[in-house]
Amino acid sequence: MDSGAIGVGIIGLGTVGSGVVRLLEDAPTSMRRREHVEFSIERIAVRDLSKERDVEIDPAKLTDDPTAVLDDPNVQLVVELTGAEPAYEWVRGALERGKDVVTANKALLAERGEELYALAREKGAELLFEASVAGGIPIIRSLRNGLVANRVESLYGILNGTTNYILTRMTRGEGGYDEILSDAQAIGYAEPDPTMDVSGRDAAQKLAILSRIAFCCAGTGSDVFCEGIEEIESSDIDYARQLGYVIKLLAIAKRSGESVEMRVHPAMVPADSLLANINDEFNAIEVVGSAVGNQVFYGKGAGQMPTASAVVSDMVAVVERKADGAGPAVGDMVLGQEALPVAPVEQIQMRYFLRMQVCDLPGVLEHIARILAGEEISIASVLQKERDVDGGLVPLVIVTHEAREESVQRALDAIASVEAVQGAVRLIRMEEL
Amino acid sequence: MDSGAIGVGIIGLGTVGSGVVRLLEDAPTSMRRREHVEFSIERIAVRDLSKERDVEIDPAKLTDDPTAVLDDPNVQLVVELTGAEPAYEWVRGALERGKDVVTANKALLAERGEELYALAREKGAELLFEASVAGGIPIIRSLRNGLVANRVESLYGILNGTTNYILTRMTRGEGGYDEILSDAQAIGYAEPDPTMDVSGRDAAQKLAILSRIAFCCAGTGSDVFCEGIEEIESSDIDYARQLGYVIKLLAIAKRSGESVEMRVHPAMVPADSLLANINDEFNAIEVVGSAVGNQVFYGKGAGQMPTASAVVSDMVAVVERKADGAGPAVGDMVLGQEALPVAPVEQIQMRYFLRMQVCDLPGVLEHIARILAGEEISIASVLQKERDVDGGLVPLVIVTHEAREESVQRALDAIASVEAVQGAVRLIRMEEL
Repeated sequence: MDSGAIGVGIIGLGTVGSGVVRLLEDAPTSMRRREHVEFSIERIAVRDLSKERDVEIDPAKLTDDPTAVLDDPNVQLVVELTGAEPAYEWVRGALERGKDVVTANKALLAERGEELYALAREKGAELLFEASVAGGIPIIRSLRNGLVANRVESLYGILNGTTNYILTRMTRGEGGYDEILSDAQAIGYAEPDPTMDVSGRDAAQKLAILSRIAFCCAGTGSDVFCEGIEEIESSDIDYARQLGYVIKLLAIAKRSGESVEMRVHPAMVPADSLLANINDEFNAIEVVGSAVGNQVFYGKGAGQMPTASAVVSDMVAVVERKADGAGPAVGDMVLGQEALPVAPVEQIQMRYFLRMQVCDLPGVLEHIARILAGEEISIASVLQKERDVDGGLVPLVIVTHEAREESVQRALDAIASVEAVQGAVRLIRMEEL
Repeated sequence: MDSGAIGVGIIGLGTVGSGVVRLLEDAPTSMRRREHVEFSIERIAVRDLSKERDVEIDPAKLTDDPTAVLDDPNVQLVVELTGAEPAYEWVRGALERGKDVVTANKALLAERGEELYALAREKGAELLFEASVAGGIPIIRSLRNGLVANRVESLYGILNGTTNYILTRMTRGEGGYDEILSDAQAIGYAEPDPTMDVSGRDAAQKLAILSRIAFCCAGTGSDVFCEGIEEIESSDIDYARQLGYVIKLLAIAKRSGESVEMRVHPAMVPADSLLANINDEFNAIEVVGSAVGNQVFYGKGAGQMPTASAVVSDMVAVVERKADGAGPAVGDMVLGQEALPVAPVEQIQMRYFLRMQVCDLPGVLEHIARILAGEEISIASVLQKERDVDGGLVPLVIVTHEAREESVQRALDAIASVEAVQGAVRLIRMEEL
């Protein structure tokens, strides 16, 4: 082991792990000229020892036992990059041994963050996670440090590249949901099982991590109200365009009294807003701070090298603090009694886009309008298209003024039981940003 | 003085200084709950002791002698917010006394950064400057830390809010340069003497500060090739629109072999690029990194509270490092032998938009085309409008393929001496981003 270098153990040598190894080998001047920044990879745990690697690794350093990495006395810093199931045990194990941890594991931090941050603080170890949200965009350190003097009022994120890619191509008229999802799978932009991405759960986990920093909110990924893009049809996108909007899968957190709204769902956003113009697989986060006003951070939210860039930036932060004799900076992540709760989704207020198929009969619109009025939902505009070629059904689109989620849900139940309304009522929430 | 608090001395209680005082008084939870983060304002130097202030200050803490702030034994951290002339003496004086410094003074750091960073390192003092570039956007720490594992290839900034406001309104057809500049002065978006902003020098200083971090480039603000927006006419903006471009005052730095291109000038950027859509007084910085690819940071680049937010974030960084017993983190800012030089502007290659008034006679276009060909400048497109109502002059617009700056300048000299060409030839550089 190089004298002065920090001993690194890596768990997981997949895409991101290989990227990290490559960045450490081929460090740019900006990194090489930093004092104290020297790493020595001591041990790497992999699933399959016989697999060919696209980075050169001394085979003696490979092991298929993650515990061997944790127990290696030369390993001071554990880099967990598996995203696999027992990651919790490995991260916990490293912290319990007083070793610093850098991880890209969003699920772990979104669900068990409080426990792990508290353990790190207790053990005097660092736990950093820039790569867990929005890949190479330095959003975690920007929120924790750059915007520390701000009370964050709201945060809007396009945090999932797969769904943004699909929606962008649908918006460009390049196909329907199923077709573009297949394309995305073919080029590796979507997983063989795309559920985590298209359901919004991936974005929900990232939102939970950001909300802990931005709002001292204790909500986990599972606490986030979550609706995916699976039901979005090309006609929704067309209607959005007619109304001056674009549909994005938004992750939204907002201060609401002494609680925090947290939700992930497809949202119509104004076509001339910055977020409406974040396309393809890119991510963006808009933060509204009490002092700075609106800020947007934009970049690649996934991929080998952007994610590896974030991991290595955390590794540099660990080694620089250690060299200075500083303790871990994890204290602010432990919320304890100060945590704000998640606001019940029923109480959220916003504008709604409603689309349904109705029989072209007199009195139908009046009936539906009466139901909405009964829930104190006022109508901002109505679009009624010409009669469909077959069946005598016409599409009816209603845009509401600001209304409460629970009122809208009750109205939808009532509308669904109107005989002239055929099939489900589509609901898309609207965000003016 | 509060026990445990760090003693702060402020030089300058203008707009930003008052904002800092207000943020410290009314710190958000995110800041209050950080360990060790406690400030005690010990001394404030102002120009006029009798002036009414919009923040409450114990009059005993005010002085009109900045040296009294430096010499106060309770002051450990000096916050320099004057932007006024002897700021160099004050910053130097604070560092020489081993006191940490936070400053928003871009001119100072752009011109004398190397000397001051080296002094800070020698004295074991911190010198932080997030507020010197792009107000509340945490671009300095993002480049220094978040993107540390990247070799930055290029950086494009809209770094001056005043000129972006003027160009945005001109692009919206709301008036000519002089008219909108007057409006901007009336609402405080432009100074009574707007030279620093409209000439591009303000942006050039900010570019020098960013380039030191991003490229290890030693160029000062004065080394940046600089052209302002004073000559931009509404017709340039109209032509840009016809060609699918928007005119922005861009600050550009690019790696070019073992040197760095640095320039500030009006540039045509593609209308669908993110930077083309940064409007009004907002700033944005696009960074292209070897690992992360393209990233954009967007927000308010000036104003009381955004700038104060950046100052306070630096103050928090200082106090947290001190509490941890860590030394200053200024070492990476001292370039020494590793500094890259600024590339000569003559050798830069890009596309050019040329506009001139010519007599509507046979052979004129041929003559001009021959001059360009002689300099190996090839023409991408020509726009020739209909004859003007008076004088028999027609506007001629030529867009070139990529060409060398020095060739274009020689061609312009030759074109200017063509008899059929009336008045000066307008040149606007084009950036594809």
